[in-house]
Amino acid sequence: MNSAQTLDTQLNVLATFQPKLPGAYPSSPFVFLANTAPAVQLDVLNQVQAEGRRPFVVCDTMNFWIESQREALGEVLRRVDGVVLNDGEARQLTGERNLIKAGTKVLELGPKVAIVKKGEHGAFLFSTYLFHALPAYPVTDVIDPTGAGDSFAGGVMGYLARAGHVSVGNLKRGLVQGTVAASFTVGDFGTRALAAASREDLDLRAREFLHFVS
Amino acid sequence: MNSAQTLDTQLNVLATFQPKLPGAYPSSPFVFLANTAPAVQLDVLNQVQAEGRRPFVVCDTMNFWIESQREALGEVLRRVDGVVLNDGEARQLTGERNLIKAGTKVLELGPKVAIVKKGEHGAFLFSTYLFHALPAYPVTDVIDPTGAGDSFAGGVMGYLARAGHVSVGNLKRGLVQGTVAASFTVGDFGTRALAAASREDLDLRAREFLHFVS
Repeated sequence: MNSAQTLDTQLNVLATFQPKLPGAYPSSPFVFLANTAPAVQLDVLNQVQAEGRRPFVVCDTMNFWIESQREALGEVLRRVDGVVLNDGEARQLTGERNLIKAGTKVLELGPKVAIVKKGEHGAFLFSTYLFHALPAYPVTDVIDPTGAGDSFAGGVMGYLARAGHVSVGNLKRGLVQGTVAASFTVGDFGTRALAAASREDLDLRAREFLHFVS
Repeated sequence: MNSAQTLDTQLNVLATFQPKLPGAYPSSPFVFLANTAPAVQLDVLNQVQAEGRRPFVVCDTMNFWIESQREALGEVLRRVDGVVLNDGEARQLTGERNLIKAGTKVLELGPKVAIVKKGEHGAFLFSTYLFHALPAYPVTDVIDPTGAGDSFAGGVMGYLARAGHVSVGNLKRGLVQGTVAASFTVGDFGTRALAAASREDLDLRAREFLHFVS
């Protein structure tokens, strides 16, 4: 279940989606651009980076956009602070088979931080003068890996937003929170397990996980 | 290059190998039984476990013996303290697809310590009340993975022998030394890169590696 195979992509309502950020959203200090058309991501970027605002922005993307919207995706990457990709996407984006080289090359496209997810094998964190490797949480019963990557990114961004600023330590701790969030998600269908997890469940698993990898 | 495919196994001179340990070898306090016929491993075990000697013994094995010499391999596993396997072998030996479950089941076969190697994805360490995950060293140019597993096991056993006793901390530190040794081996053909590495090269890379994973 570690590598997804894309058989077909249907954009449906997302094909004409033009998000207008409501209320205080455009001034969020931490923004995650989930995987969607680079044009839509740019549209949101224009709203959150307007009027001199400089939030910490991380984007996701996928094979479909890397193939078909290379130019617009390039502009997104030049304008964000970080990017979250899986191993296959990092290889596709950079043309590098070796994941360490691929992660380093992603940084040349613009982001100051690149997080490369490897599913059950954990994640790599790349930045200037920084390389960090973290195993995955040892899940014994994977029910449905759908949404694991989004849960991971949510955990990372949620931690950074709560911490209030980005540093090497906070990025590493964010990776731990993302790993823990994803480990709940894969344990049941959809959002069921993550939605049922309490703050205490997440904290307990984070401590367990730090014990595993220390 | 992460998973080997066995096309054919020819034992050649090893088919009739009957090692007689010379001099002080039978009283070594740390013994590694490299991958070979379980009957040969038992022969060596009889020598190192004779006369009330209780060395710390770790064995390796492979798909060929798991398939064809299950019973003798079972006796080896009941008599050793630890085993080093790769992911495929752990799955084959236990019939468990999930690697965490597989590693736990290996312990039920006898060893108190099971180390499961995942190539470029690092290694797991299983023991009673202990689970530990370690990423691999990030090698950017893998030239030849042959011998990586043996170098890894050698690094682990060498560290334990130098430390003089087995503990959770020493096992974890041994895994680091094994990872570092393997990272040199894969960087060139045969034993070339590892043979050329000095103590200082190994120590420097170990410090780098601890920085990557901390």
